[in-house]
Amino acid sequence: MKWKCNHCGFEANAFSEYHWRCPRCGEPLDLVYDGKLEKTSSKNIWEKYGDTIPLKPEKTRREGNTPLVAEKIDGMTLLFKLEYLNPGGSFKDRGSALAIYYAYKSGFKSVIEDTSGNTGISVALYSRLYGLKTKIYMPKTAPPGKKKVIKALGAEIIEAPTRGDAAEMVLKEALTGAYYVAHTWNYFYIIGASTIAWEVLEEDVPDYVISPIGSGGLFLGLVKGFEKALEAGWITKMPRFIGVQGYSTQPVYKAFKGVTQPGEDSSLADGIMVPNPPRLNEIVNALHKYQGDVILVGNTEILRAWRELWELGFLVEPTSASIYAALEKIKNQLSGKKVLLVLTGSGLKTIPDI
Amino acid sequence: MKWKCNHCGFEANAFSEYHWRCPRCGEPLDLVYDGKLEKTSSKNIWEKYGDTIPLKPEKTRREGNTPLVAEKIDGMTLLFKLEYLNPGGSFKDRGSALAIYYAYKSGFKSVIEDTSGNTGISVALYSRLYGLKTKIYMPKTAPPGKKKVIKALGAEIIEAPTRGDAAEMVLKEALTGAYYVAHTWNYFYIIGASTIAWEVLEEDVPDYVISPIGSGGLFLGLVKGFEKALEAGWITKMPRFIGVQGYSTQPVYKAFKGVTQPGEDSSLADGIMVPNPPRLNEIVNALHKYQGDVILVGNTEILRAWRELWELGFLVEPTSASIYAALEKIKNQLSGKKVLLVLTGSGLKTIPDI
Repeated sequence: MKWKCNHCGFEANAFSEYHWRCPRCGEPLDLVYDGKLEKTSSKNIWEKYGDTIPLKPEKTRREGNTPLVAEKIDGMTLLFKLEYLNPGGSFKDRGSALAIYYAYKSGFKSVIEDTSGNTGISVALYSRLYGLKTKIYMPKTAPPGKKKVIKALGAEIIEAPTRGDAAEMVLKEALTGAYYVAHTWNYFYIIGASTIAWEVLEEDVPDYVISPIGSGGLFLGLVKGFEKALEAGWITKMPRFIGVQGYSTQPVYKAFKGVTQPGEDSSLADGIMVPNPPRLNEIVNALHKYQGDVILVGNTEILRAWRELWELGFLVEPTSASIYAALEKIKNQLSGKKVLLVLTGSGLKTIPDI
Repeated sequence: MKWKCNHCGFEANAFSEYHWRCPRCGEPLDLVYDGKLEKTSSKNIWEKYGDTIPLKPEKTRREGNTPLVAEKIDGMTLLFKLEYLNPGGSFKDRGSALAIYYAYKSGFKSVIEDTSGNTGISVALYSRLYGLKTKIYMPKTAPPGKKKVIKALGAEIIEAPTRGDAAEMVLKEALTGAYYVAHTWNYFYIIGASTIAWEVLEEDVPDYVISPIGSGGLFLGLVKGFEKALEAGWITKMPRFIGVQGYSTQPVYKAFKGVTQPGEDSSLADGIMVPNPPRLNEIVNALHKYQGDVILVGNTEILRAWRELWELGFLVEPTSASIYAALEKIKNQLSGKKVLLVLTGSGLKTIPDI
């Protein structure tokens, strides 16, 4: 397993050194590894895919192996992947299980991250399992509920005046030798998301994949997962990929379409409000390569979709509903198709008001 | 499939009539059915166990198939069954998937229940899937968070001044022809809990089973599940069963031991505060038959156990922690043993304060 920068060509052995981004040019780093994709029946996804990917975590809370629910709605077959039923309440657990095990194996004693969301919960959960000290840098204004969850998982919270201050503080501490998870850059989160694609394909084969895009880790992980499955002969053609962003933060839409739409002050889908995705070019290339598209959704649409998902029995958070809002806008084109919808995060942290 | 009263001998065809308790003597009703237990690899537990149990629900949110996490702690091998990762956040979903499908197949148009807890969420979720109108009777004092979840799932909430009033109101409405779920009596919740035992046995074989006892549906379901597995040759002997109650409400302890312990005003484990379990005798008989025991735990012990479970990465509610508190009290006797701990409900609804 080695780090590789696709921008400047930098390479390094990932078992002997850790970089959260390219030390030469500052771009995101990929992990390059060999590995054949094969079907097994284990419920532990690291036993299942451990020969495919470069690490087999020693500790697991049985992340992954989440339900796939098929429903025929409006002439489509919707395949809902219930990622919010992961042990930490989101798909991030797949990446954290890898990223934190890597930190432990590499000899780090402490883990730091700047986030206030699902990644913070997930990082806190897995760090504790390996006995690593964890500090999560959060803006003062972060939701108290999420802070309580992160603290209850045994992590320390450092409050910063703003989100920007939190980022600065974590970078300063990263220089002292702590493992900076940097999940929006960290390739392990992309590998984690690929396991979602493989699980889905063991049950069904979608024609379309609809995914929220924040930093793009989920989106790129799905793309790479399907690519690997194509290579292994599990499928004969790639699905088409639809990315979803909010009107409030549309960097991928802008880069893909060359225009922007009128913005909104804030998005209910706070999980995808990432103004500068580190892998923007890669996301846009994948969208072009697989005849993809980007759909923007607004708060009113997200709210309606969120309620509809709850009434379908899917207890998700608003970010997860953004893809269902997007589906509503394009469903006429998808009649007769199988559409994969990855429901990313638990709504029990954020119960909707009626 | 027929109803059978083990008290007075009443029997009736369960496909043609519904009784929430024995219409002759008022005791709880069992369901009697044939069915061989066989191993299959499906992820849909109704495909998996549909030939064993009397109903195969048409609608599923992929309840069940929950993670089993093994951890060596204090010389024991603990098998944590993560039932809080069910789609509605608790093991109740297994029973509701059956009980509500039964209501639908039997032609009921509306479903009523008196509960403020996990069952309310679970009943609301599955009723909506079948288009059944749902009313949940709750005391005014029930937690606002749980009310919000139940409403967001599309159910109507009827507030009663007290828990007792809620029970009276639901009984009055049951006379008008609605399906009264009566989960503390309803045998489908026992069958649902049996599927937990079967899933566990496909991965590992515990020497001990520790389960909270409220109405006893989970406890009895586990006992019957292991009995069925013994009959099918999956295991060669039954595990020992430990039931857990709070000092605040100790009917099973009293009936089993013949004494009570000094009480507490209220229990953090609100899910097991059931003063009159309808199947009390059956619970006590099973405890005697399988060399079982009942352990009482208090609020301080539950709170400590709850925090420990969170730090182990199990995001559960306090009721689920009662069994871990009980384990602490008897762990010296369990050295070298495999102990199954069923973690019943999600803690994301009730995040602990630090």
